[in-house]
Amino acid sequence: MNIAILTFEGFNELDSFIAAGVLNRMKGSGWNVQITCPSENVTSMNGVQITAQQPLEFAENADVVLVGSGIYTRDIAKDSEILDRLNLNPEKQLICAQCSGTLLLSVLGILNGLPACTDLTTKPWVVESGVKVLNQPFFAEGNIATAGGCMSSQYLAAWIIAKLAGIEAAESAIHYVAPVGEKDSTVAHSMSVVSPFLQTTNAA
Amino acid sequence: MNIAILTFEGFNELDSFIAAGVLNRMKGSGWNVQITCPSENVTSMNGVQITAQQPLEFAENADVVLVGSGIYTRDIAKDSEILDRLNLNPEKQLICAQCSGTLLLSVLGILNGLPACTDLTTKPWVVESGVKVLNQPFFAEGNIATAGGCMSSQYLAAWIIAKLAGIEAAESAIHYVAPVGEKDSTVAHSMSVVSPFLQTTNAA
Repeated sequence: MNIAILTFEGFNELDSFIAAGVLNRMKGSGWNVQITCPSENVTSMNGVQITAQQPLEFAENADVVLVGSGIYTRDIAKDSEILDRLNLNPEKQLICAQCSGTLLLSVLGILNGLPACTDLTTKPWVVESGVKVLNQPFFAEGNIATAGGCMSSQYLAAWIIAKLAGIEAAESAIHYVAPVGEKDSTVAHSMSVVSPFLQTTNAA
Repeated sequence: MNIAILTFEGFNELDSFIAAGVLNRMKGSGWNVQITCPSENVTSMNGVQITAQQPLEFAENADVVLVGSGIYTRDIAKDSEILDRLNLNPEKQLICAQCSGTLLLSVLGILNGLPACTDLTTKPWVVESGVKVLNQPFFAEGNIATAGGCMSSQYLAAWIIAKLAGIEAAESAIHYVAPVGEKDSTVAHSMSVVSPFLQTTNAA
């Protein structure tokens, strides 16, 4: 299972690394979670430089693509050099976006009429791109999922794991990262957020 | 306000970057949050290489030191070369630890009889080092705070902001990173976790 977490210049650390951290709980089951970038290095919105684990082209054949968020997403959404390197296929791949990542899914034509979640700052731009933005942390239909608000990354990760490895695996991953003394309540809450969208997609 | 987030080889991405992300909400107020490492580069437990923003010595004069977690903390706790570079002063600095970072506070003699929080995996080693481990996400007394379970990093960050910039600033930072549609409940919950320890420390 190859998972590309798209991480651009000016990225939001929470949005890429919460998802990566939770999804990497599946490393023992062979999941290969990779921070995937348009250049060899990218620097976060707060000045932390990281080295890409994979080039952008890794996303094309990944089983799951999760588009992270950042402060330059509006520029990236107009950058044909980057967009042209993203050949995603929502019929074969799970495609997810966190916060401003939703704007990229919109301009790539992947949302295709679906409503979506994003953060409050990005919301006007996603609306302007023709997408109905929901006032909720998470939404999914079929192979497409979006989340809004940094800490919602855990819901994206839980949904991906539940969809590909089952609900117990998702519960176990969230249990591990949850605060001590709040593990059961955190698992119950996360699963209550994503479960309605697992039923919908399972029935599809 | 200089804030050192100590980040070692094999670090847990959630533990360093959730705290960094939330604390950086105070960047506009002049807070200088720095990923602080023993070497020029460190690689996370999941293979992500990052470049240090500061060397370990930055911690000595920081206003806040937050010790992150990772898979090699038990080795670091016996590594005198690293420990000797950490001259921390709990009388002048806020000193915090996340998950296995608590083991480092213990061996550095900073806990000094205080009970502490840590993750379930590290718990036996912290107990062995002579510390009472609490079954709760967060504990603080005076200038020392510890948290257990990756997602508790948000509580450490909220406590630091509340203590140094007031409760409204902490609420605002958590509000920003919280899931859309769950912002008020997330703020209320986070503040309910840290508030008892603000009252205690304010009275001290």
